Parts: sequence; C-alpha cells; structure tokens
Amino acid sequence: MIREANEGDWDEIFPFFRAIVDAGETYAYPSGLEKDEARELWMERPPALTVVAQLDSDVVGSAKMGPNHPGRGSHVATASFMVSPQHQSQGVGMALGKFMIAWARESGYHSVQFNAVVETNSGAVHLWESLGFVVLATVPQAFDHAKYGLVGLHVMYLPL
Amino acid sequence: MIREANEGDWDEIFPFFRAIVDAGETYAYPSGLEKDEARELWMERPPALTVVAQLDSDVVGSAKMGPNHPGRGSHVATASFMVSPQHQSQGVGMALGKFMIAWARESGYHSVQFNAVVETNSGAVHLWESLGFVVLATVPQAFDHAKYGLVGLHVMYLPL
Repeated sequence: MIREANEGDWDEIFPFFRAIVDAGETYAYPSGLEKDEARELWMERPPALTVVAQLDSDVVGSAKMGPNHPGRGSHVATASFMVSPQHQSQGVGMALGKFMIAWARESGYHSVQFNAVVETNSGAVHLWESLGFVVLATVPQAFDHAKYGLVGLHVMYLPL
Repeated sequence: MIREANEGDWDEIFPFFRAIVDAGETYAYPSGLEKDEARELWMERPPALTVVAQLDSDVVGSAKMGPNHPGRGSHVATASFMVSPQHQSQGVGMALGKFMIAWARESGYHSVQFNAVVETNSGAVHLWESLGFVVLATVPQAFDHAKYGLVGLHVMYLPL
C-alpha cells in the first residue's frame, strides 16, 4: 500500500535512508546526516509530496516527488526512491514508481526527469526502463561509488 | 575584473537578476522573487562561491559556482551566470566563464556540468561550446520560454 507520509513515519524511514546513503552506491547525499537534517531533505511540502510503501504495519520504502525546477521548469517532475534493504527485489520500487507516474500525470506534469541515476544501479535502471523511461545521457564519472570508484550518472526521462 | 562578491554587491546584482528572470527566456527561477529571497538563491557560501564582473566601478555581471551534488557527486562542479542586459555581447560572460573553469580546476573538481541551458539561448550555448563544453543531452520541452513556449534544456559538460 502506498500512502502519503506523515511526520511519524520518519522514525521508520530514517534507518533505511541512512543505511542506503552510507552504503555509498546509489545516492549523492552527504554522508553522516543527522536525523533532523535528513528529514529536511526527504520529507516534502506541497506542491511536492513524500509517500511511503507500507507492508502490513511496516514502512518498507519511501519516495518523494515534485517539480524538477521552479518557475518555468516546474511542469517537469522529478522523484527519488528508497526501499529498505531487507525488502528489495520484492516489487516495492515498482509500486512506488507506478504511484509516482500516476501522481505526476494527475498533477498535470508534462514529463518526469531523473537527474542522477547511478549507472551501476542496474536494478533501478531496469525498473525505470520497464516503466518507459529512456536514458537521455550519462554524465561520465559523476558519482564516486563506494565499490567501483567513479561511475556515470544517467539522466532519465519519461514523457507523460 | 572578476572578484569575489561581497554582501554590498547584491544591491547591484539584484536589478539585472530580476530583469533576466522576469524576461523568462533563460532561467527557471520563480518569478517575482523578493530581493531577500533571490539573495538566498544567488549569494553562495563556501565551498561554493559567487563572483562579480566589475567594469570601472559598476557590477555588470555575476556568476555562482560550486558542487553540482553533495557527497559522492561533489567532485563535479556546476555554475550559473548572469550579465546585465546593457552589457551583454561585450565579453563579460566569456570572462566569467573562463574564471569559473580556472576556479573549478584549481579547486580540484573533475568536471563541470550545466543542468539546464535553454536551447534557444544560442549566445550562451555557443559561448560554452567555444570553451570546450559539449551538449550531452537535451531534455525535450523542459523550459516554458516566454516567447517560444516549450523548448529544450541542454545538459552540458566539460571534463577538466
């Protein structure tokens, strides 16, 4: 089940947010963020939105979505996704992705752009391609991967 | 002359910042920003930097530069540039661009990425190409141009 996040959800999101950022394989957030600092980066306010994926009573994933740029770029949406490491490869990312696309379409966005999908994160790349995204470009060596060193960041795009 | 901006420079930058944003042809900032709100968006703190181009005693242009992403993306620089409409096509953008590239190289960045160069802003596109940038991709219809409607945004890239 995907639903809008509330303030109380942050206690469940933060542990996997922290684990995913600290693993250094998928996100260019600062490492070692405190719980309050990370909340500011993840928990959005309108017109943007943060949602959670709930499985039974547990929060197992989260996504945030909103305009990629303000003003004259605000008709293009962007989004970010995190799934708890214990619940990956179980369709949670797919459910969050489909929710985001439906939300962007209903909200009147013209397209969705991802600015920085790590090229070695093949699970994510394949997921987005399966939902219709294309890789517009790969910025060479733009991400310092904890295992592989400098790898590319895909700019991905879906017209709506 | 290019020099680091100080707080007092904002009084001279803001009028052309406002004019350029309100013209709606080159920047996806919110329109109608108040002077204090716009200052927060333009006047950077370390490790980022804001500079001005000074001609005689007048501030005729400004640029800001810094990491494109935090954390594991912070070895890629990005930058933004504004030249007073009365002083365009006089080499001010070129001087600011060359300063930025030298600064990025000296600061140890691996490359420079521009995320959103309006494709119809041919003066800017040609300037960056003359300094070695390439267009990696064009995000279709990502900018709502005041005159031309929806036009593309170039992602441009320079290895250092």
